Amino acid sequence: MSDLRNRFGQLGMEALGTFFLVATISISATTAPAAAPIAVGVILASMIYAGGHVSGAHYNPALTLALFFRGGIAMADMLLYMASQLVGAVVAGLVAGLITGHTIAPKMGPTSNHLQAFLAEAIFTGALAFVFLSVTTSENTKGNPYFGAAIASVVTVAAYTIAGISGAVLNPAVGAGLVLTHNWLKVGYLLWLVAAQAVGSCAGVAAFWFVAPSDFEEVSEEARGMFEAARLRAREGAQEARSLLPQRGDAGPSQG
Amino acid sequence: MSDLRNRFGQLGMEALGTFFLVATISISATTAPAAAPIAVGVILASMIYAGGHVSGAHYNPALTLALFFRGGIAMADMLLYMASQLVGAVVAGLVAGLITGHTIAPKMGPTSNHLQAFLAEAIFTGALAFVFLSVTTSENTKGNPYFGAAIASVVTVAAYTIAGISGAVLNPAVGAGLVLTHNWLKVGYLLWLVAAQAVGSCAGVAAFWFVAPSDFEEVSEEARGMFEAARLRAREGAQEARSLLPQRGDAGPSQG
Amino acid sequence: MSDLRNRFGQLGMEALGTFFLVATISISATTAPAAAPIAVGVILASMIYAGGHVSGAHYNPALTLALFFRGGIAMADMLLYMASQLVGAVVAGLVAGLITGHTIAPKMGPTSNHLQAFLAEAIFTGALAFVFLSVTTSENTKGNPYFGAAIASVVTVAAYTIAGISGAVLNPAVGAGLVLTHNWLKVGYLLWLVAAQAVGSCAGVAAFWFVAPSDFEEVSEEARGMFEAARLRAREGAQEARSLLPQRGDAGPSQG
Amino acid sequence: MSDLRNRFGQLGMEALGTFFLVATISISATTAPAAAPIAVGVILASMIYAGGHVSGAHYNPALTLALFFRGGIAMADMLLYMASQLVGAVVAGLVAGLITGHTIAPKMGPTSNHLQAFLAEAIFTGALAFVFLSVTTSENTKGNPYFGAAIASVVTVAAYTIAGISGAVLNPAVGAGLVLTHNWLKVGYLLWLVAAQAVGSCAGVAAFWFVAPSDFEEVSEEARGMFEAARLRAREGAQEARSLLPQRGDAGPSQG
Repeated sequence: MSDLRNRFGQLGMEALGTFFLVATISISATTAPAAAPIAVGVILASMIYAGGHVSGAHYNPALTLALFFRGGIAMADMLLYMASQLVGAVVAGLVAGLITGHTIAPKMGPTSNHLQAFLAEAIFTGALAFVFLSVTTSENTKGNPYFGAAIASVVTVAAYTIAGISGAVLNPAVGAGLVLTHNWLKVGYLLWLVAAQAVGSCAGVAAFWFVAPSDFEEVSEEARGMFEAARLRAREGAQEARSLLPQRGDAGPSQG
Repeated sequence: MSDLRNRFGQLGMEALGTFFLVATISISATTAPAAAPIAVGVILASMIYAGGHVSGAHYNPALTLALFFRGGIAMADMLLYMASQLVGAVVAGLVAGLITGHTIAPKMGPTSNHLQAFLAEAIFTGALAFVFLSVTTSENTKGNPYFGAAIASVVTVAAYTIAGISGAVLNPAVGAGLVLTHNWLKVGYLLWLVAAQAVGSCAGVAAFWFVAPSDFEEVSEEARGMFEAARLRAREGAQEARSLLPQRGDAGPSQG
Repeated sequence: MSDLRNRFGQLGMEALGTFFLVATISISATTAPAAAPIAVGVILASMIYAGGHVSGAHYNPALTLALFFRGGIAMADMLLYMASQLVGAVVAGLVAGLITGHTIAPKMGPTSNHLQAFLAEAIFTGALAFVFLSVTTSENTKGNPYFGAAIASVVTVAAYTIAGISGAVLNPAVGAGLVLTHNWLKVGYLLWLVAAQAVGSCAGVAAFWFVAPSDFEEVSEEARGMFEAARLRAREGAQEARSLLPQRGDAGPSQG
Repeated sequence: MSDLRNRFGQLGMEALGTFFLVATISISATTAPAAAPIAVGVILASMIYAGGHVSGAHYNPALTLALFFRGGIAMADMLLYMASQLVGAVVAGLVAGLITGHTIAPKMGPTSNHLQAFLAEAIFTGALAFVFLSVTTSENTKGNPYFGAAIASVVTVAAYTIAGISGAVLNPAVGAGLVLTHNWLKVGYLLWLVAAQAVGSCAGVAAFWFVAPSDFEEVSEEARGMFEAARLRAREGAQEARSLLPQRGDAGPSQG
């Protein structure tokens, strides 16, 4: 019972943190676009410091995914976290729309192409995931007080540098919350961004595995299971596919 | 005697911290409006670090109220803190007016309505109270060095994002200090802001209770007493009201 | 011998820190005036973190004075520190002038009067001295990692808010370094600023004594001696002056 | 084997950190020049916090050189670090060029001369090296959490104040990465900058040796060996040169 209560607290924290993040993004885009990178970064840092000890303070499905590959969260929790983040983001999009009278949605820069946007989004999401894993999951940085600032800073940097290229979302929940409340139909660019973020998240995990091998003894059992299952399924599929193909023996003399 | 001396020191710290906060708000609004969110945030952070170990560094009646509900301050102290904060704010409003030759007062954005201003003010005051409780009253964040930056950051974010909507006050003492020194008559909007801040403060406490149940074992005895008294008074009032109403029995046959 | 070597290191650190502070002030005033408050604040914070464990990282005669009243530094060291700070500031003024081809000097805002400039300068120097004492000399904040940011932030705030009123110097060495290299004659406004800074420094000490009595058991012996000597001299002077005045007895009958 | 694996991780971290630093410099110069000093500083801070416990987080050959003189890194490691930094910087220059469609290169300010650029670059590289050594190699600051912010802040300050004078590079890998990807021919100014950075790096080491003698017991054995070898070679060269000169004895009576 008490455990269930704590579990709800964690999911509530993820929803709340994502709510304030998305509300700040959406309101500042209307009222203070030039200051938005700072505003978004510092509200994120504050929310990470407020909620880090409760839920880990992801507020971002790409980071929850990275932590899953790292072995730091179970799959069921990952899915619950992601759902909570999405709920917080959508509610924030609606409330911010009520407060400013506008909704916004990320879009690609007018002089950029899809490859450039993908690269920019993937690289900075990778930096975000790498910094997140380094400052929150390493034995060597345990108990450090800079984790919130270090993680949030990457978001500020991206908001300054690639907002005009990809939109600088870095966060599937932010993207979904903004797009869903702005426009229930145009989800095409959202999917492109989410793909870039997923690639970046995996790249961040891989970079962490490369540079800090002693901190990263093994991949999550469940993630390993997924890879293994995928490998088996791929092998079975290949066998099935092979069985459907004309056998070598069909065209020549029997070997048995 | 020594205890009285320390008590005066605490109230002096609250007045001093609020003084520098309001002086910076008032002077920067005249001399550097674009930089005001940064200036206000960092002076607040510095004052929190300077006074945190003396008085707790609230400098804001909405936070003192939140701490009262949380059970961290007695009612008598709460009222003394609030009075000290108000004194500091009014003196600062006067001194800043002397330095710049102007006084300022918060006002609602020209394109916003009262509901939008209320929502914006309540949401960010809620974020402020939530972060304040999380980083200063939780066992899990005890001794952390980021409390000042995390709390002050919420003020910077609000100053950037909702200054053009509600005025981004978040602090009844700031509002009162500015309004009282600017204009002794127009207090209507001040009351609206204070109501929003009170709602936000309670919402922050509720959110903290929700996400961190293990840090929040019980509501302050005094706050509980207030609720209980209010409930009893409401029940008595209902009984009285019922006794004044025509009894069911009056219109029909006696049941006794 | 080794002690002498360490002493030189401390004075070198004070000169070096003040050098970088003044060089940044002077260069940024020419190349990036809008960003100067941030640039000056962060170089100061970095220098405080680099030199805090060596010399205490004052880089400011007003703070060295405040520490002397607080009892944290002997008078001989205070004077050596101040001389080192002045040397660093003058060299920085010259080198910065070489790099940019300009020298600058603080001046009063065109719409301000001397009282306003004095008040602004004294209030923020007081805030600086108060924060400095609170975060570097209190038992309760010992070992904290935020001292550099908290102190430097006050300088950033002042640079934003009162640069257009008093010039926002807060530091006699900075004022002297800039004025001496800019103009060897016009030192009148410099003296006004230094007076304001001395008043602010004393006010910061007084505020610290008021709010944190348990951290401030007694005034420096030497400072107490100075006060005592001044009191004795004043009394002797009064006696002498009285002996020179026509005695009451002269105009009336002898009382003996 | 495991040690080799960790060594690769360190070099990978240096390449990765320098990659994100240079990518942010190059992209922000095109998309957000006014915010570049903040963006560059905060990505550097985040990368220092992410990689400090892995490789020491230099991301800058001038700092690796300073650490070598300080005795903190062996010569072979120094050369591997520098190569890794250069690889990261060049790859970042190419990728950033792909994302923005532009490449950039540092250049001297139009109103500055070579001496001014040299001085500016050397002074701030010296500040960077001094702060780096003070906050990462001193016993007295061991375990501090502000090292990343203190180091990165110097870069932000330089980017604000001397970008219009020398280009504010402070980092041979950044200079080389940008220049090599922008223009494979014009390396003249790069060499001038690198010379200034080398001078600044040595000056930073010397300043650290001066102000913190107790933290700096001895110069690196290898660096001492280099100095000694240079001295011997110089003496031998002088002897050889002397032997080629007409002997004193040639023009006068023999002294034997």
